[in-house]
Amino acid sequence: MKLMYPTNSTTPNPAEYSDGHQAGPIRRFKLSGGLSEGVEIVEIDNGRLRLWLLPQRGMGIWKAWVDGAAFGWQSPVRGPVHPAFVNLHEASGLGWLDGFDEMLCRCGLASNGAPEHDARGALAYPLHGRIANRPAELLAAGASELGIHVDGAVDEARLHGTKLRLASRLHTQWGAAGFTIIDRVSNLSALATQFQLLYHINFGLPLLDAGSRVCAPVERLVPRTARAAAAVAQWDVASAPQAGFQEEVHFLRLYADAGGQTAVLLKNAAGTRGVSLHYAVHELPCFTLWKNTADVADGYVLGIEPGTNFPNPYSFERAQGRTVPLAPGETHEIRLHIRFHLNAAEVAEQEAAIARIAAGRAAAIESGPARDCCADAD
Amino acid sequence: MKLMYPTNSTTPNPAEYSDGHQAGPIRRFKLSGGLSEGVEIVEIDNGRLRLWLLPQRGMGIWKAWVDGAAFGWQSPVRGPVHPAFVNLHEASGLGWLDGFDEMLCRCGLASNGAPEHDARGALAYPLHGRIANRPAELLAAGASELGIHVDGAVDEARLHGTKLRLASRLHTQWGAAGFTIIDRVSNLSALATQFQLLYHINFGLPLLDAGSRVCAPVERLVPRTARAAAAVAQWDVASAPQAGFQEEVHFLRLYADAGGQTAVLLKNAAGTRGVSLHYAVHELPCFTLWKNTADVADGYVLGIEPGTNFPNPYSFERAQGRTVPLAPGETHEIRLHIRFHLNAAEVAEQEAAIARIAAGRAAAIESGPARDCCADAD
Amino acid sequence: MKLMYPTNSTTPNPAEYSDGHQAGPIRRFKLSGGLSEGVEIVEIDNGRLRLWLLPQRGMGIWKAWVDGAAFGWQSPVRGPVHPAFVNLHEASGLGWLDGFDEMLCRCGLASNGAPEHDARGALAYPLHGRIANRPAELLAAGASELGIHVDGAVDEARLHGTKLRLASRLHTQWGAAGFTIIDRVSNLSALATQFQLLYHINFGLPLLDAGSRVCAPVERLVPRTARAAAAVAQWDVASAPQAGFQEEVHFLRLYADAGGQTAVLLKNAAGTRGVSLHYAVHELPCFTLWKNTADVADGYVLGIEPGTNFPNPYSFERAQGRTVPLAPGETHEIRLHIRFHLNAAEVAEQEAAIARIAAGRAAAIESGPARDCCADAD
Repeated sequence: MKLMYPTNSTTPNPAEYSDGHQAGPIRRFKLSGGLSEGVEIVEIDNGRLRLWLLPQRGMGIWKAWVDGAAFGWQSPVRGPVHPAFVNLHEASGLGWLDGFDEMLCRCGLASNGAPEHDARGALAYPLHGRIANRPAELLAAGASELGIHVDGAVDEARLHGTKLRLASRLHTQWGAAGFTIIDRVSNLSALATQFQLLYHINFGLPLLDAGSRVCAPVERLVPRTARAAAAVAQWDVASAPQAGFQEEVHFLRLYADAGGQTAVLLKNAAGTRGVSLHYAVHELPCFTLWKNTADVADGYVLGIEPGTNFPNPYSFERAQGRTVPLAPGETHEIRLHIRFHLNAAEVAEQEAAIARIAAGRAAAIESGPARDCCADAD
Repeated sequence: MKLMYPTNSTTPNPAEYSDGHQAGPIRRFKLSGGLSEGVEIVEIDNGRLRLWLLPQRGMGIWKAWVDGAAFGWQSPVRGPVHPAFVNLHEASGLGWLDGFDEMLCRCGLASNGAPEHDARGALAYPLHGRIANRPAELLAAGASELGIHVDGAVDEARLHGTKLRLASRLHTQWGAAGFTIIDRVSNLSALATQFQLLYHINFGLPLLDAGSRVCAPVERLVPRTARAAAAVAQWDVASAPQAGFQEEVHFLRLYADAGGQTAVLLKNAAGTRGVSLHYAVHELPCFTLWKNTADVADGYVLGIEPGTNFPNPYSFERAQGRTVPLAPGETHEIRLHIRFHLNAAEVAEQEAAIARIAAGRAAAIESGPARDCCADAD
Repeated sequence: MKLMYPTNSTTPNPAEYSDGHQAGPIRRFKLSGGLSEGVEIVEIDNGRLRLWLLPQRGMGIWKAWVDGAAFGWQSPVRGPVHPAFVNLHEASGLGWLDGFDEMLCRCGLASNGAPEHDARGALAYPLHGRIANRPAELLAAGASELGIHVDGAVDEARLHGTKLRLASRLHTQWGAAGFTIIDRVSNLSALATQFQLLYHINFGLPLLDAGSRVCAPVERLVPRTARAAAAVAQWDVASAPQAGFQEEVHFLRLYADAGGQTAVLLKNAAGTRGVSLHYAVHELPCFTLWKNTADVADGYVLGIEPGTNFPNPYSFERAQGRTVPLAPGETHEIRLHIRFHLNAAEVAEQEAAIARIAAGRAAAIESGPARDCCADAD
């Protein structure tokens, strides 16, 4: 990895931002012990925001710290987990869960969503695909007057199979309470193919609490199951941790502004802290809200998940046209900006901005699962 | 890992016990090459007993050396094996065998026993569960006037799944020819669950030989299969290595003394060497005797296996009530003491002690498989 | 690993051959990053030929460089791949492809060939067996006046299963444009068993090009499928890269010379570069030609594959008698010599030598799949 530190006089002095850190804005190290043995961390620190990037887990992000506050969730899995300890192909198709504890985890590329078995019961598509357990080659990392960036490339490629590459850049500006992901998914093959990509972005305590709200410019909302439907009136509100809570999922279409951009905010009950996502709906047309407000010990977490598709079994999504075609050699770019809000004024400002995106347009909140969105609708 | 070496003057001098070792009573290193690449060893040496602990294999014990004599067995697998080379989920459910070469190997925690497939043939419960291929986090290791201890924690936890933790302590006194395991299995979840735990403790040459005997205060003995039944009269005697020998398994209930403690001894034919287990029958009510006196090249081995259950497929054992319930947050403790006997007097003394446990009570040796113990009884 | 460098005065001076290398004829190192993290390379350099040996991938050979020219192929997989990233047991049985990018890759030992599922659809034999993803223990490596050798041992062994060991020696003479493999497969068990071994030897650009030819003393050639049969007239000629090309496979029996030796040559269209295999037909009676002249991005590659069998599903081959029996303790030796040809004269000389092996005997080129060779004949 090439580290390019600022060298000229117009460059911000990283020391100004480093809050006592002597190590510079980019550090690499490996964890030891337990499930984390050999896990490489790329830590970046822009002076206000610190992130732990996981190259071996498909360039996922373990946690973020902003002004000293931690963002992420407390998974029952104590990771970050080395992919060697995750068996995606156990018969249930749920092996992916053995590694799942990140704040930001990609699902894809050949497929994502619930596991799918073939007619004889053999696993055809494991839960959420392979990308989160594929290691990246780090291509570059550097710091300049523009900020810090880290580039990595992750392949899902085999002979007689798909040849997909995710080239991911993470960028953050000096002193910013946020970062941008620029993902480029390429078809390396001479044959046409398709892909799916969903950003599984997860928050627990303390951001998530009883009364936390999701603010989004909803065009359409469809509860995934009858049970989710029963709670649809409270779709945007999180409960307190509740032992035995069964997950509730809603599938959403969001309005965009004149430039095609949309935004989603998750804020705490007091409205004093939040995180927002910013992206183009034509790049990520499907938004999934995952409410899993179980007991803290079992994973008290809410996921805000923009994607190219809904996380239904692959064949269902494909039949609905929710895969992204890629011609031979074609590259598809997706940008996602994530911002942290540390006080009530910032939270309120973001909420108002989201209201401006909706611009008074109605939200169609459906009363039950719909056949075009929900594999289990019938 | 925090290493706390003796520092005050009342502490035994480890050098006295170290038999020329300069390295101290606890050493950590990693193996290189073949299937052992990256396998961490915690070697402890109390001056008489040396053990190789395997944190990455669920705190198993590879071999023990007492007064220079090795205890363990010669598996056809040349390990210790890194879990990355063990695929528990191959369709047969037998992938566990690829890593199996330890003297002491735990089977559990969510399940143990023979593999079980669902109605469509998909693997539901792999042979002997996951714990032996899950890596521990080492929490502490130290030496004091009381001896040496090593603590590790191993999790079987995933979102939407069981959240079990094994916190294991191994302790040995200075100069003792034995050690104690204190295992605490906790339910980290807010929901009730259950577990199974079996200690697969295995010996081959030279302890095991033609005429080796198992001494136990038998209350009831049930041969697992018709073939085991045919040899039941010789249930306590080991044969010489025999090419093509098919394993014989007996399921036992043991008597305990007034304090609830029981013991089992395996001694060589000459009665000059032995190993004994000591534990409470209410903690480990089921005892399995595994005779696999095949050719040395194929694994000449006998297992003495106290457990919470018999190693039948999970659903059978569960139906028989042989799982341990754990309320939310509950911890269940199991203690197991293992002692090595290096001369005829010690062996005879241990045998007499076991006879005192039985105290003349009759042993019910059944003539064939029983429905309450044997999944394959019919 | 014991490195024995030349020490006496009659030994060739490695420096003479090292082309500026200061590092000696044998080097070991580990790769970092991506799928290659932790992959150990044993690089040997005889002054003209350089090889990357992969102990962790069953002693395979990643690439060869002769007079600076690279031999191998451009797999869509960017390896060499650590076995921890290859799941042989995914339900399709095709997980092996995730690691496949070597010039020389062994397929075996318990089985090789196309994956086979049992009657219920469970995977019984994964594609090409386990050996290429099993790590070797390096036993010795050294250099003497005779050249350079590296010895490694790879086990496929488990309790209640096969106990096969491959002890492999690679040897090359100083300044030679070739090397010899001496593989000894042993049955470590006291029970009889059998094995299969196929050398999957693969070349892409620049050796392989439009008009490349395979020269072999063909006794019998059987196209594996109807599609291969349609192209059988051109069986020995390679096409240019062609997007969407579906692999064509031919199964061959080769004539041998009076000493039982045969040879096969692959040459480029201009006849200025080639590679030849030399071995005894009684050791490797089956020869498979694999034409996969797809687009370069998808793997433009031709395989010349001598084996103990054809790579059909295991049960078919076993029924045809194409497994090698091994008595208890028996060892079976196979030698394979590979030579690189760097100019037209050498290529022509090798082609003439192959013609002399055939000695005018007729080649039976069959027009379609045959039942004794092709699992999919009907």
